[in-house]
Amino acid sequence: MVVAHHDGATADSPHVLFYGHYDVQPVDPIELWENDPFAPTIKDIGNGRKVITGRGTADDKGQLMTFVEACRAYKEVHGRLPVRVTILFEGEEESGSPSLKPFLEANAKELTAGCALVCDTSMWDGDTPAIAAALRGLVGEELTISAADRDLHSGLFGGAAANPIHILTEILAGLRDETGRVTLPGFYDGVEETPSNIKASWETLGRTAESFLGEVGLSVPSGEKGRSVLELTWARPTCEVNGIWGGYTGEGFKTVIAAKASAKVSFRLVGQQDPAKIRESFRAYVRSKLPTDCPVEFHEHGGSPAIQLSYDSPVLIKAKDALSDEWANPAVVVGMGGSIPIVGDFQKMLGMDSLLVGFGLVDDRIHSPNEKYDLKSFQKGIRSWARIIAALAE
Amino acid sequence: MVVAHHDGATADSPHVLFYGHYDVQPVDPIELWENDPFAPTIKDIGNGRKVITGRGTADDKGQLMTFVEACRAYKEVHGRLPVRVTILFEGEEESGSPSLKPFLEANAKELTAGCALVCDTSMWDGDTPAIAAALRGLVGEELTISAADRDLHSGLFGGAAANPIHILTEILAGLRDETGRVTLPGFYDGVEETPSNIKASWETLGRTAESFLGEVGLSVPSGEKGRSVLELTWARPTCEVNGIWGGYTGEGFKTVIAAKASAKVSFRLVGQQDPAKIRESFRAYVRSKLPTDCPVEFHEHGGSPAIQLSYDSPVLIKAKDALSDEWANPAVVVGMGGSIPIVGDFQKMLGMDSLLVGFGLVDDRIHSPNEKYDLKSFQKGIRSWARIIAALAE
Repeated sequence: MVVAHHDGATADSPHVLFYGHYDVQPVDPIELWENDPFAPTIKDIGNGRKVITGRGTADDKGQLMTFVEACRAYKEVHGRLPVRVTILFEGEEESGSPSLKPFLEANAKELTAGCALVCDTSMWDGDTPAIAAALRGLVGEELTISAADRDLHSGLFGGAAANPIHILTEILAGLRDETGRVTLPGFYDGVEETPSNIKASWETLGRTAESFLGEVGLSVPSGEKGRSVLELTWARPTCEVNGIWGGYTGEGFKTVIAAKASAKVSFRLVGQQDPAKIRESFRAYVRSKLPTDCPVEFHEHGGSPAIQLSYDSPVLIKAKDALSDEWANPAVVVGMGGSIPIVGDFQKMLGMDSLLVGFGLVDDRIHSPNEKYDLKSFQKGIRSWARIIAALAE
Repeated sequence: MVVAHHDGATADSPHVLFYGHYDVQPVDPIELWENDPFAPTIKDIGNGRKVITGRGTADDKGQLMTFVEACRAYKEVHGRLPVRVTILFEGEEESGSPSLKPFLEANAKELTAGCALVCDTSMWDGDTPAIAAALRGLVGEELTISAADRDLHSGLFGGAAANPIHILTEILAGLRDETGRVTLPGFYDGVEETPSNIKASWETLGRTAESFLGEVGLSVPSGEKGRSVLELTWARPTCEVNGIWGGYTGEGFKTVIAAKASAKVSFRLVGQQDPAKIRESFRAYVRSKLPTDCPVEFHEHGGSPAIQLSYDSPVLIKAKDALSDEWANPAVVVGMGGSIPIVGDFQKMLGMDSLLVGFGLVDDRIHSPNEKYDLKSFQKGIRSWARIIAALAE
């Protein structure tokens, strides 16, 4: 944890806590990177766009520096900051933040401010800033199913011995029905339909399945039928298999029945879904599908409930106006598909609401090879934060 | 290919072709080996058993040397071999033998003998030799399903973008129904029920699900319901997933929706099942399950029909008597779950039947770490081959 404090214009100036994280996702597969992921490089990608490439440029080192540079610039021009600023930088966000809660608890007084500024989200598009008011939660699980006590020859044992890859694929396939709904008992407890006025405002944004999925080479929406892509990614829970492995995966062919098969599975949560109950429901479902001679091991990879912030707080309204002054288009208030568990921790542990502003773009390739951050996001993002801290001082 | 010829007692002595292979399966996972897989070591494994450990000791370098040593010993004692011997050693058996058919075709005259001796099978148990008269065929397929043109963040895209691991697991899970039957259209064309007298002879062998599966730490038979483990492994076709991979499989968690997911799948064939038709049926089934924006690539990994040899040929009867003289128990005529495609090639291309005798044991861990071959198999196997070639000369 890195914590820093800076005075505001007066001892009574409003106090904000700025949060970002400097750790990053693994760079694998490294061979797909066009540059050293840890030697950031400025590249021209056409259409007048210059970007900084490298791991963490968008998630979240570049975004964190956007705020730091805003403070530096503000000080250079005005001699001091308009608000009192406490900075909290974390290095375990991509690993589920195991040390964060104890740290917040131990330093609650030092860290509590009027509101938190969190910069780990995206713009609506390259000209339209966004403030996120709804964030999905997450349950991460890893499971390993074991069968025989060694790899078996599929000729000698095939047809009689349990194949853990079969068992695993049947379990994973059974997690969703033909309408795309998750089949776990109790999974939708606490999921509410999005209010119709919110849905209507999202429809005006004009994001279609074609435009959203077309950017990544797809066209057919997956998941629950009969819902828009914004609803699917902002307001509906999901189940995704994030990784799977078992048996022989090298060149050529090996007629083996594996001893073990594994998968990493995550659930995105919305509304009041309870991460602990969903984890238990998943584990009970998996156990119910296993032959009696095939044990399973589970490994927990984090869990956090969804977050819903007020759509009309004074902080949100001031920030929305400040952003709208800087960019070509007015700021929009949106949902976000990803999880930022610290927002819930700030709410529960420090009684502090968050303002979620970020300058990432949908094509940033975060978590993937060749992650980038637009130079325009960096430069106008700096100006945006300067405007926001000025507005919050009023 | 290694070919060698040796004279028999006279120019009119019967002529046999001996076939074995000196290539082996990959050693992965190398870290599970207790010895260097390519530095064969003699070990005492208790109960008076000594074994040679190393990759290929049982499959098939050790078995091949069993015959070579038999010839050497026979010559030392008798001055010459009782039959004319042509030896054919192959180095591509574990890769689907791509060069074998052209080689047989180009050298048909040189290689054609009265019968072929093939040493790539197992004994019934440590005291009971076996001759294999039925061998399952094999179709090997690798498939890769692609979705988005890059790995995606499951928060931003989850619920809307296709996940190729989901698609793959649904496809693989759908290959078998709840009774364990393979669901591909036409899959059972050419599969006949085993004659009741053969089934009855197998029942006397006393192999139960408990004894067979218990050796590898399992107890519940998988695959088709209502059939014995001998039927399941010798006389019924199967579908097995031999490997699966996709997404993030390293330490920790990465909330990614993968761009691709892959699997290696094999089918064991019996009776008159047609490998080409089954491959096509599999591919058509996979294609029928894909969303229109998710392409699939297939890679063929070999295909061979099943083999059924005569249960009462003179060669088989002579070999059965010779084996019964050497070992504690009489030899049994069995089926084999594995594939030895060359037996079909010998039949079709050279008009030559095969005698399938081998000295492997069920616990040899072929294709797995710590493969071994019993010293007793090696030593009494040498004596067995000496007896067989003597019997074939009469």
